[in-house]
Formats: sequence, structure tokens, C-alpha cells
Amino acid sequence: MTSGALLTDLYELTMACGYWKSGNGEREAVFHVSFRQEPFGSGFALAAGLGPAIDYLRSLRFTEDDLAYLQSLKGADGSPLFPASFLDALREFRLTCDVDAIPEGTVVFANEPLLRVRGPLLQAQLLETALLNAVNFSTLIATKAARIVYAAQGRSVLEFGLRRAQGPDGGLTASRAAYLGGCSGTSNVLAGRAFGIPVAGTHAHSWVMAFGDERTAFAAYTEAMPQNVLLLVDTYDSLEGVRHAIEIGRQLEARHAKLLGIRLDSGDLAWLSQEARRMLDAEGFTEARIVASNDLDEGLIASLVQQGARIDTFGVGTRLVTAYDQPALGGVYKLGAIRDPDGTWQHRIKVSDQRAKTSTPGVLGVRRFTSNGFARGDMLWDELDGSPVSTAIFDPFDSTRTRDLLVSVFRRGELVYEVPSLAASRSFAARELEAQHPSVRRLENPHEYPVGLETRLCERRTKMIAEARRER
Amino acid sequence: MTSGALLTDLYELTMACGYWKSGNGEREAVFHVSFRQEPFGSGFALAAGLGPAIDYLRSLRFTEDDLAYLQSLKGADGSPLFPASFLDALREFRLTCDVDAIPEGTVVFANEPLLRVRGPLLQAQLLETALLNAVNFSTLIATKAARIVYAAQGRSVLEFGLRRAQGPDGGLTASRAAYLGGCSGTSNVLAGRAFGIPVAGTHAHSWVMAFGDERTAFAAYTEAMPQNVLLLVDTYDSLEGVRHAIEIGRQLEARHAKLLGIRLDSGDLAWLSQEARRMLDAEGFTEARIVASNDLDEGLIASLVQQGARIDTFGVGTRLVTAYDQPALGGVYKLGAIRDPDGTWQHRIKVSDQRAKTSTPGVLGVRRFTSNGFARGDMLWDELDGSPVSTAIFDPFDSTRTRDLLVSVFRRGELVYEVPSLAASRSFAARELEAQHPSVRRLENPHEYPVGLETRLCERRTKMIAEARRER
Repeated sequence: MTSGALLTDLYELTMACGYWKSGNGEREAVFHVSFRQEPFGSGFALAAGLGPAIDYLRSLRFTEDDLAYLQSLKGADGSPLFPASFLDALREFRLTCDVDAIPEGTVVFANEPLLRVRGPLLQAQLLETALLNAVNFSTLIATKAARIVYAAQGRSVLEFGLRRAQGPDGGLTASRAAYLGGCSGTSNVLAGRAFGIPVAGTHAHSWVMAFGDERTAFAAYTEAMPQNVLLLVDTYDSLEGVRHAIEIGRQLEARHAKLLGIRLDSGDLAWLSQEARRMLDAEGFTEARIVASNDLDEGLIASLVQQGARIDTFGVGTRLVTAYDQPALGGVYKLGAIRDPDGTWQHRIKVSDQRAKTSTPGVLGVRRFTSNGFARGDMLWDELDGSPVSTAIFDPFDSTRTRDLLVSVFRRGELVYEVPSLAASRSFAARELEAQHPSVRRLENPHEYPVGLETRLCERRTKMIAEARRER
Repeated sequence: MTSGALLTDLYELTMACGYWKSGNGEREAVFHVSFRQEPFGSGFALAAGLGPAIDYLRSLRFTEDDLAYLQSLKGADGSPLFPASFLDALREFRLTCDVDAIPEGTVVFANEPLLRVRGPLLQAQLLETALLNAVNFSTLIATKAARIVYAAQGRSVLEFGLRRAQGPDGGLTASRAAYLGGCSGTSNVLAGRAFGIPVAGTHAHSWVMAFGDERTAFAAYTEAMPQNVLLLVDTYDSLEGVRHAIEIGRQLEARHAKLLGIRLDSGDLAWLSQEARRMLDAEGFTEARIVASNDLDEGLIASLVQQGARIDTFGVGTRLVTAYDQPALGGVYKLGAIRDPDGTWQHRIKVSDQRAKTSTPGVLGVRRFTSNGFARGDMLWDELDGSPVSTAIFDPFDSTRTRDLLVSVFRRGELVYEVPSLAASRSFAARELEAQHPSVRRLENPHEYPVGLETRLCERRTKMIAEARRER
């Protein structure tokens, strides 16, 4: 994971300098990361990116190189942008913030605080860009993966997207989030090594083209890799390719080895997979798997499943790792409260004419109410009010089973969270998804899961909006 | 730039192993990187990614760590996927390929070889994923930037997208490609340091919210950063914000400093910018710049310009760095020819029912024909045929001025190309764009620039397609 103190927008640094010079750097402030709308028309999102965010926070230091670069920057009049004394302060920078976050793999909804930073204003501001960068993209891809895996209805999904990802690390981050969201493996070898994700792959069209004819190519591959024979059959003609694969399967049997399966990468995947299955079964290769790929996404996969395609494994690339139909999650980082020098907390709200862009003030927590194994609703509350006194918004439900979603990650800059393995987060995500009613997980027109504000928070927010409008 | 020999799809390694075991690893082969369709409905693309590709190629070595990981991988029967002798061969891997490429910043079109690799089949195959990863994303973003800059009609464009990019390095790569494509600067400090891109930024809404009222916030910012005062005016009310900025401008004048400008980030940017301009001008701040942002792309910018918006600088983020409306370039890596052990070249073609997916055989070159300062058409030709004998497809044009687009980058694995600075490539890109007729650069329904095949190449390709179809 690339990291670095300079991985930030310049304005975080000019603001940090401003807070420092104006004597506000040490004022205690609280910021929240949240998104305004679930992506892809989904009824939920799957939280991800805390792992990369922790890596960033733990290694955050300004090196002499960083400082020399910042020293070289000039303002409009040619004078240094940053005074030397501020750069000295950055040299001594050590994170002392408290960070709370919703663990990776948790099902989350719009306007919930995925991550909360509480600490000196200068520090908390400085973290904005890098935290958004970590959370936005990973949450987007984990959510996309969860949708694709849901569409596959128990069939496995492999992520094949590295060649279309946003640079090397875009690919690495995407592979990690895709696995978290439920994919079974990746083609990306570096992601396999870095995160312990199972890797998969056999051969491309170029293998067949290099040999010139498919039979020779399949035989050469089998000779070289007898324990990994899954053959791509569509270089010339898919069903002819299946026949050639069956010949190979017979040769493998004679050697006490096995044809693992075939891959279809073009054409009518529903029909071809049914034909291929029939041909393979007729020759006794009932265990040979059929893998299919070709610009697949959750919509196409749902359609293939519904048509009775005989596909065991879906390979998804471009449309997963770029989140093709909505390639950005609009996560934001908003100030919720700030403390006066005398210790009094001041709530803060950003009011916008666009209703969804109005923020929620406070030091926010999220409590989830569960009954009969299903999540029923979430309540945002303000820790400055003390524990929630009312569960009014959840009246219709049995609210005896609750869970606070935010967990402590850093306390005064020290990591206090036992970071789960990626595999553990992936299992947790699977359980989280199971705890959502199918109506929430449905791909189109999902049920709107209730997320509400605790009574006092709701009243305060309404009052603050009204005041802000009056002042105009 | 993250790099690494494992930044690849597993199948490149299983194929490499197969070529090695079957005695084909040293056969000479030629692969081309090309894309099948210009993105965003554009009439052209802007080549980019050669810089990152060169970084990857120069550092390509398998470390003991890499090899230990590969050794740990198992086939379906639990035996090692790769024999130890193959891993020994990887340990000795040194690039010996010839690589030719179209320089960054060149205007390119569908089906042209952006990059050509010629060398031992094992090596050339192994490079596929990483080269596609480098070229696909950078070319996509450089092209998007060129369109946005074109729409801005001489006004400057700043890239602000780091928080929505695909991970840290996704942001870095995007900032680089955006600058190459014509942006004037970035908010991304790390990209500024890494690539010498001008960086820009002042303050966010959170600055104003921290102080609670805009006047106090603007004054505090100005006190801290008098040489960098460009004020974000829309936290509460944009035109009220402009009035507060004007007050600051007066205070700055008294201190012999200057209000650099204001930034609008919401609302009706056309109307607000006109009002803000009128207010600033009336008070004598004719040089104060108006920056505008808020989910802008080339379509919105063209519309703002057409409406007479008084915007000097456009800040673009999400829709640039994610290439929002088409977040992937479908670049592919196809085998063009392979040499028999006796030295004879064999042409190779991948035929598909989808016409655009049929590849072009040969060892391809691209020649551009120019007259009266404009590019008139490109010819693909096969170097195995020797130099082009006919310019038939370009009959209507003066074909006296021609230029071969591919340049030598590596010869037998050694870098022979003097890599231009990013700034030099950016200037080159600007000249390249000027050499395209406006009808090709137009945002919608552009003129289809002629790209044709040299006579013999065209005949060979047609014949090979017919043969492939007959064999079915």
C-alpha cells in the first residue's frame, strides 16, 4: 500500500497552517466520513477501506523530503507558501486523534458515520483526503462485489480486472475489496501475495494463437500444467473447443488426472453453457466446471441465472473493478462539532439547498436494532447527549437486541483495534449480508432500510437548519 | 509508482511456464497493445502510460519473496503449480525484448498499435497485464482531460479528484495523466512532488464551519495565508460570500496584497459567476479570478461557456479521475506474428463474430500523413512486408509529409529512449491536438479520422479472415 503524508489535497495543508497560525490547531473537533446515497441503486453498501486507512494513519509522518517539497511551494507573490515554523511543527507531527469506525464488511447505509475522527482540529482536518480516498473506493467495490455475488446465487465469482484498473494500486485495492465483498478469488497475483486471496488462471487466447491450432495448444498446455487444466474454448469456435477439451479430458483420465473445466469468453453464454454442459455430461465429465466471462456485471449474471445457464463460475473484470455504472462513491468528510477554548462543545451543520447535502451535527454514533435474525433499522445519535433515551423511531420493532456499529480504532493516536484478517472480514461480511432482509439486498428497487435520528438529535438538527435559513 | 513482477494475472505465469516446458519460450513473437473504440464518443484518444510502462519494464525482476509465493501455489491435486526448475528460470529473468511505442501525448485512434513488444514468447506474454494496466487507465484519463480542456476554450482546468480516485496510486496516476492531457494543475500534493505538477488549493467548507461565521473565517485565513487568498464563498450563501470576499480584498489592498479570487462550489454556476463578476468588477477587483467546481465534466463546462458564464478556472474532480461516463478503456494485447524455429514468420489473427474484436496480423507500424498543418489519415502497415509501397488509401491527400508514430523504446531489454519530462510531453500533446482538424476534436459526433491498412496488409488480413471462417 502506497502511503505518504503528502497524499492529500493542498488545501488540507493550507488549512492546517491557518489553524496553526490562528491558534485553533489544538481545538478539539469531530469529523465524520459518510456517503449521501447508496451506489448502483443498491439498498445498502458494504463498509470497506478501514484496513488501508489504518495503514495510512499508522505511518503518517512528514519526512525531510516531504518538508523540503512543501518549503519549495510559493504563494502568488513569490514568497514561501508555508512559514518555516509551520514546517517545523509538521516535522514533529504525531497523530493523537481518537478514531472510531464501522468494521470492514458491515452493511451500512447513507448518512451513517463510517469513520469518526476526534482530536485537534489541525490533525483531524489533515486526514480528510487520504481517509476519503481509502474509504470511498473500497466501499464502492466491496458493494459492487456483494451485488454480483448475490446475483450469482451461490455460484462462485472470480475477479479478473487488473488490466482495466486504475493503475497498479487501483487494481490491488480493487482485488482486496472484491474479495471482502464475496468474490472467491482473483487473477491478480500481487493481490494474492499481499492479502492471501486465492489466485486463479490458466491460459489466454494468445496461447491457442501461438500454437496455431487448438488441439495442439490444448495438448501442450496439458502437458505443461496437468494439475491446472481449465481450457479456454472460444478462440475459434466454442463448441468445437468443448469437443477438443473433452479429448483432453480422456487423455487426462488415462493419466489419472482430471479436466477441471472449460471457460467460455464470448457468444451466447446461456445457450453455449447449456450445450457445453450437455456435451461434457454425455462424455462423463460431470464434474468439469464451466467458467464464463465477457463484460459481466450483476444484471447480466442475474439474467443468465434466470435463463438457466449452466455456469459454475463467473469471471468478472472491468465492470467490477471500475464499478462501471457508477465509478465513484460520493463520500464526504464533515465537521460535526468543535470545542470552544472553555471546553463547551459547539455543534456544526452544513446546510445546503440540496437536501441530501445537509450534514448531521454532533459526535455521532450508530445503533442497529435487530429482531428475529434480521436488522430492522439504525439510529444515529449524538454522544454529546449521552446514551439514547428513546427508541421512538423504531417503535414497531422489538428493540431489545441492539448493537453499536462504531468501534474504537485509535485512542490518542495509538491503534487499539485488533485488525481482523481479510478472510475474517470477508466471513463477517457474508454474515452481515445474511442478516439483511432479502428485500434490502434485492438488486433493483430495494426496500428502503430505515435509518433515523434519535429524538434529541433530530430536534437539534431541525432547529439548526431553521436557524441557518433564517440567517440568510 | 508501485511496480512488481507479480503485478500480473496468474494466467500470464501459467502460460509462461507452459511455453517454457513445451520448448516455445524462446520463439520470437510480436504483440500489440491497441484499443477497439475511442472512449466517451470522442473522435480520438491521447496516448499515455508509456512512462509508467517504462518504469515497470526497467524494474522487472523476480525477487526471492516473489518466487517463494509462487512456489507456495498449488494445483487442483495439491501438487505445486510451478515446477522448481521454472522458478529457477524466473529467478534469472532479464528482459531482452524490443519495445516500440507511440510517445505519450500523441493523438491516436482505434486499432493502432500504441505499444509493440517483440521478443521471446515467454517474456512478451508475461508483460501483458502490467502493460495494459499502465496504458489503459492513463490513456483514458489523458483523453478525458483533453476533452475537458477543449470544452473550457482557453480557461484553465485544475484536477481535484484524489478523494474519489481508485486508491492512493489511482489518484497519482490520474493526476499525472490529467496534467498530460492539458490540465494546469492538481490539488494532489504527492503528484505535485512526484511529477512536478503545479499544486493548488486554499480552504474547504470545514474551515468556515470551524469558525462558525464566514467573515471571521475569511479574516483568519487571510491573516494566516495572505499570499494565497482565494476564498470559497458558498458555505452559507454564495453572493453574501462574495461580499465578504470583497471586504477581505479591501483589507488586503491596504496591506499591499491581493485577493486572488473566489470559488463557487454549488448553485447555478452560470448565473452566480456573472453576478460575482459584476460585484467584483464594480469594486475594482477586475483581476480577481472566479473558480468554479461541482461535479463538472466536459458537457457541463461546454454548456457554461456557451451560456457566457464568467468562470476563469474550472475545478474538476470525480468525473475526470474516474472517467465517470466510461471508466475503462478496452485496450487489448494481441499476438500479431510468431516465428517458427526455422526463422519463418507466421502471421496470427484472432477472428471474432464481433467485427471490432478481429485483430490485425503482422509486425505493425503506423504512418501519419499530414498536409497544411493538419493530420489527414493514418496507415497501418506490416514491417514484415518492408516499407509501404502504396499510399492508396490516402490518394486524395498530399502524402508528401509523413511520420512514423512508433519510436524505439527498448532494444534487447535496454532502454534506448530518452524519456521526455512530463511537462515536455504535455506541450507535445497540446501541439498534437492543434494538428487535428476541429471536426475531429469536437465533443459530439466527431468526424471519423481515416485509419486504413496498407494494401498488402489489407489483402492479407482479408484472406486470413476468410480462411479462418472456412475452417469452421
